[in-house]
Amino acid sequence: MAADSFPVHPLDRDGLRQRVNAALGEFMDRQAGVLAAAGEGMVPVTAALSDFVLDGGKRLRPGFCYWGWRAVAGPSADDEAVVRAAASLELLQASALIHDDLMDSSDTRRGKPAVHRRFEELHRATGWVGSGESFGSAAAILLGDLCLSWCDEMFGASGVDEKALRAAKPLFDVMRTEVMAGQYLDVLEQAMGGGSVERSRRVMRFKSAKYTIERPLHVGAALAGADENTLRAYSAYGLPLGEAFQLRDDVLGVFGDPGLTGKPAGDDLREGKRTVLLALAGERADAGQAESLETLIGDPELSDAGVKELRAVIEDTGALAEVEAMIADLATRALAGLAVAPVAEDAREVLRELADAATVRSV
Amino acid sequence: MAADSFPVHPLDRDGLRQRVNAALGEFMDRQAGVLAAAGEGMVPVTAALSDFVLDGGKRLRPGFCYWGWRAVAGPSADDEAVVRAAASLELLQASALIHDDLMDSSDTRRGKPAVHRRFEELHRATGWVGSGESFGSAAAILLGDLCLSWCDEMFGASGVDEKALRAAKPLFDVMRTEVMAGQYLDVLEQAMGGGSVERSRRVMRFKSAKYTIERPLHVGAALAGADENTLRAYSAYGLPLGEAFQLRDDVLGVFGDPGLTGKPAGDDLREGKRTVLLALAGERADAGQAESLETLIGDPELSDAGVKELRAVIEDTGALAEVEAMIADLATRALAGLAVAPVAEDAREVLRELADAATVRSV
Repeated sequence: MAADSFPVHPLDRDGLRQRVNAALGEFMDRQAGVLAAAGEGMVPVTAALSDFVLDGGKRLRPGFCYWGWRAVAGPSADDEAVVRAAASLELLQASALIHDDLMDSSDTRRGKPAVHRRFEELHRATGWVGSGESFGSAAAILLGDLCLSWCDEMFGASGVDEKALRAAKPLFDVMRTEVMAGQYLDVLEQAMGGGSVERSRRVMRFKSAKYTIERPLHVGAALAGADENTLRAYSAYGLPLGEAFQLRDDVLGVFGDPGLTGKPAGDDLREGKRTVLLALAGERADAGQAESLETLIGDPELSDAGVKELRAVIEDTGALAEVEAMIADLATRALAGLAVAPVAEDAREVLRELADAATVRSV
Repeated sequence: MAADSFPVHPLDRDGLRQRVNAALGEFMDRQAGVLAAAGEGMVPVTAALSDFVLDGGKRLRPGFCYWGWRAVAGPSADDEAVVRAAASLELLQASALIHDDLMDSSDTRRGKPAVHRRFEELHRATGWVGSGESFGSAAAILLGDLCLSWCDEMFGASGVDEKALRAAKPLFDVMRTEVMAGQYLDVLEQAMGGGSVERSRRVMRFKSAKYTIERPLHVGAALAGADENTLRAYSAYGLPLGEAFQLRDDVLGVFGDPGLTGKPAGDDLREGKRTVLLALAGERADAGQAESLETLIGDPELSDAGVKELRAVIEDTGALAEVEAMIADLATRALAGLAVAPVAEDAREVLRELADAATVRSV
């Protein structure tokens, strides 16, 4: 089922996305004041961060965090503090994306120039001295650092009561360490030339499954005072769902419609992203197919014909069909985990819709 | 007075540095466990961070934080929690240095390879594919991000009671935003080609004075429940002291003994660091001197003769003498501020010694 066939998109239940955006807007306004005190030179920084954080993003992690809480706490009148805590995860995501785009030398993000390119262009347009590329890189490092430190600031200042914060913070902390570890393993996998299904799955588990779904659910659950049993139930739902979500994203990165993904067709192939999909193709390739994979993956100048050739290899080796089977299997396991989780029925229904949306197309 | 002429270095009073190092060691051991769960690939990350955080660094910021607390709280039996909170500032500093070295393309830090160079070398030695430089950059970004997120984790988990933490966290938060704003203004100043004494002083205020001295004192004071009056007194001491400390560092960056600074002679000149010292030299230079400054500053291949020529310009223009006068004036103002601060006498004495150590040579 395509996401837009839901009467209300599951991420919009309880008016969530609007409330997350409002919370982020308020927080960014406060930070704009702090940055302004450092002088006029900060104006482009404030503008870039405001654009990046407020304009775009599916608010997936706040969604899982909020519903992880809501499924334990039940409907409650006073939950804006939890929305603020959940919204803070978008700042971690902003930091990860800004740094990731720099590491990958990506030119665009959500159809607009990546942050490092934006500052490179500012350097060029103003006619400053030295290397515009270095200026752009430095700006992206620092803007990502700002978002990273704002993330826990917003979480801690959310207004959630101390006891709940104290219960949730260790899960919030381990989430950050895990996503950075996952990012490093991803970079390492590229350096090792890929090819290992096992290592690619590990990257996926740490960089995506835990970070995007399991840990946001855990943080939400802990904010509601949930016990270990609920955390385990969320893992049984969130980890397979997170893997399925990433596998779907990998398939879309090769076969997706640029109009829906917002990325040029075959961009993951040009970047040389080492996914489970490609590792499987590599494992099953004959000599000719292996040569195509080896020559074409990671070629920044890869033509449309090259993209087509790689797509054919990925289909012909059976890798695509196997990944689709994995997605289906993981989604089934996630829903089975959800079915027995000790959560409120209305929230279980939303978590089920989120699982559908995440695995059939990009949420 | 040189620092080593103190019977006990002021940063070692109350056995502080040893206790800070022990607290960091314990924290890093716990994180090693989290990283190990992500797999064998993380081993070099754990090793590099452990080397970076535990081996080196003067522990200046924990020192000001601890004495900022101690001067309000008085001697106390149960202060290991405060030592842990103070020690967490070293993780912010580690993050800043790892990212700074990458932005500046510095090869070394404390006489050892910078983190990005260490991972570049790992890439080369292992024979991985792709660009070793990109691998090193990505690793440095991610390792800096780890330290940045660990910084507030360690602060929050220090064991300091909730009320004290709640009072101190906003100051801790603004400190992080200010140092990143200062770093950005510094990068911007290089891009603008330097030359403005006013802008250079602003960079110094945000990047150094607030970050190194004023805010660590504030965080410590807030941990002790200090009032606004004490915070203002710490600003009156800490801001001029921080500026004096940075000016001293800038002088040492040009004229310092490599054996004491740990950096090759003239490295700041090769990097093109835009300091108040150089802005003053530029303001007062005649045509010939201006040409020397313009041609030689920022030349990565600058010879010893070039360093000598620039030193002569900085002396002959009177810039060096003026900066020395500024340092003396700022130190006097800092000590005057300290003299009337509402703090315990034994701690006032240590803060006075720290001021001497910071302005006469690098602490």
